[in-house]
Amino acid sequence: MARQKRCRICKREGFIHLRYANLPLCKEHFLSRTRSVVQDTIKKFKMFSKEQKVIVAVSGGKDSMALWHILAQLDYKVEGIHIDLGLREFSMISRKISEEFAETHGLKLHVFSLKEELNYTIEDIVKKSYEKPCSVCGTIKRYMLNRLTYEMGGSVLATGHNLDDESARLMGNILNWEEEYLYRQYPVLPEEEGMVKKVKPVVFLTRKELLKYCEAEQISYVDVSCPHSRGARSLVLLDIMEMIEDKYPATKLRFVKGFYKIREKFAPSKKVELHKCVKCGMLTASNKDLCRFCRIKERMEKNEAIERT
Amino acid sequence: MARQKRCRICKREGFIHLRYANLPLCKEHFLSRTRSVVQDTIKKFKMFSKEQKVIVAVSGGKDSMALWHILAQLDYKVEGIHIDLGLREFSMISRKISEEFAETHGLKLHVFSLKEELNYTIEDIVKKSYEKPCSVCGTIKRYMLNRLTYEMGGSVLATGHNLDDESARLMGNILNWEEEYLYRQYPVLPEEEGMVKKVKPVVFLTRKELLKYCEAEQISYVDVSCPHSRGARSLVLLDIMEMIEDKYPATKLRFVKGFYKIREKFAPSKKVELHKCVKCGMLTASNKDLCRFCRIKERMEKNEAIERT
Repeated sequence: MARQKRCRICKREGFIHLRYANLPLCKEHFLSRTRSVVQDTIKKFKMFSKEQKVIVAVSGGKDSMALWHILAQLDYKVEGIHIDLGLREFSMISRKISEEFAETHGLKLHVFSLKEELNYTIEDIVKKSYEKPCSVCGTIKRYMLNRLTYEMGGSVLATGHNLDDESARLMGNILNWEEEYLYRQYPVLPEEEGMVKKVKPVVFLTRKELLKYCEAEQISYVDVSCPHSRGARSLVLLDIMEMIEDKYPATKLRFVKGFYKIREKFAPSKKVELHKCVKCGMLTASNKDLCRFCRIKERMEKNEAIERT
Repeated sequence: MARQKRCRICKREGFIHLRYANLPLCKEHFLSRTRSVVQDTIKKFKMFSKEQKVIVAVSGGKDSMALWHILAQLDYKVEGIHIDLGLREFSMISRKISEEFAETHGLKLHVFSLKEELNYTIEDIVKKSYEKPCSVCGTIKRYMLNRLTYEMGGSVLATGHNLDDESARLMGNILNWEEEYLYRQYPVLPEEEGMVKKVKPVVFLTRKELLKYCEAEQISYVDVSCPHSRGARSLVLLDIMEMIEDKYPATKLRFVKGFYKIREKFAPSKKVELHKCVKCGMLTASNKDLCRFCRIKERMEKNEAIERT
């Protein structure tokens, strides 16, 4: 590996070279730039103010840990929420890391266990499901994070989606021209009936930047991937975007930012009809009486297979 | 390599396996299917009728040779046009192959030499240009094909862009959200003031299908790539799309067809202002008095470097 170039600003020893910006930075200037990028993103997309209670979805991975740390450093009123999915060792470690971080930094963390909430772990559900693991797990996490944020009196839910995730997901949605998903791919989704406001404050930071941020701030994180993610389409698309970025630096950022500018073109012509789930009362777009979460629960209770949506 | 599966239709020995359609076919059924796909494309996009004179841009490569052959087989009134770019051996072989094909099949071919028309070869121009070779060559070919089609009394210009080209180009335009280029990426562009109608009848056939078509019909073609194409962005994007297709068969077709359905979203809000080039009289969107082609010519005559657009 080539020796790190000196910091563009202070000429001290380089800590990272941001290839997309052709910018070598020392540790200190890298940290302040990273927090500035997040601050600018929060402002630009009117995500939240210093008075609002922001709930951070904390998985224990580098993205959410860095996000939580940055928001705390920027003096936002943040509380973490961690869902213990019951994925054997993976979940045990994730929970422990999240709890230790909260303890060390004097931050408030709410932990919910899927086993307690739903009576089943993700492990149990995946076994009974015809859906891909990431899909069924996504449904459950989205539902729980939304409901719990309301119950905790939070007005905004912040997630750690980074630029790599966002560009790979955008690529997937574009290859299939998923108009509805495209429209909903944005750094901020406003509060709608029954849906809490959702924001992605680190969406313009790469995976590498968040990793180096954790390294610089000595933040521990889970660095094994979920045991069910192997071969997932999202990982293939991450690789593809990485190859493109490698050939043409700054493509990811241009691709994602460019999309945000034209995203209104994909606004749906008519509003999706929502109704209240007859069981939990949360609003749902499902064509059944029950929302998708309650249907999964019901299927599990009846010991029946979970069908694809 | 695994043994070719038997033809889905007649159970005879397989000649090709179309992975995107999971369809093994014998030579005969492959040829008839290929021609049907082209026929359907011509109809669906109202490209041209049997009464119109269609000019095929013949480079000597597999795509344009197959296109020319298919259109002749389908009884369209086709004439070929070949531009000798003056790229040393590459152009000599391309011209010879095009001429021999016309001769053998009793088809009419018009050959134009860039050296005669413009007084310079592509080779000369590339040396004096700050633009990428593919870019300056593209400008010249588009200009000449358009003007010559008019002069030959043709009402439509057909090019051999295949699905691989189209999907790679679409990917490039999307990565940069080139709205204007996106809107103009379509299988048929109507005649506009000064611009002949342009069509891509083989846009739903892959590179592999056109290659196998030439093989089956014993059509010779130039199979060396242009000496200036090395490292071109279009080749990188072709590789990327190939990797995606390899993982998820039928993605290219879905990606391109899906785009055509939503392409209207990229319609420009105001029409591009065109004016007549003060030299050649052709319409141009250039912000200068001269069209891009005449500007290149002028620069060459003055022995000045050709600037980027």
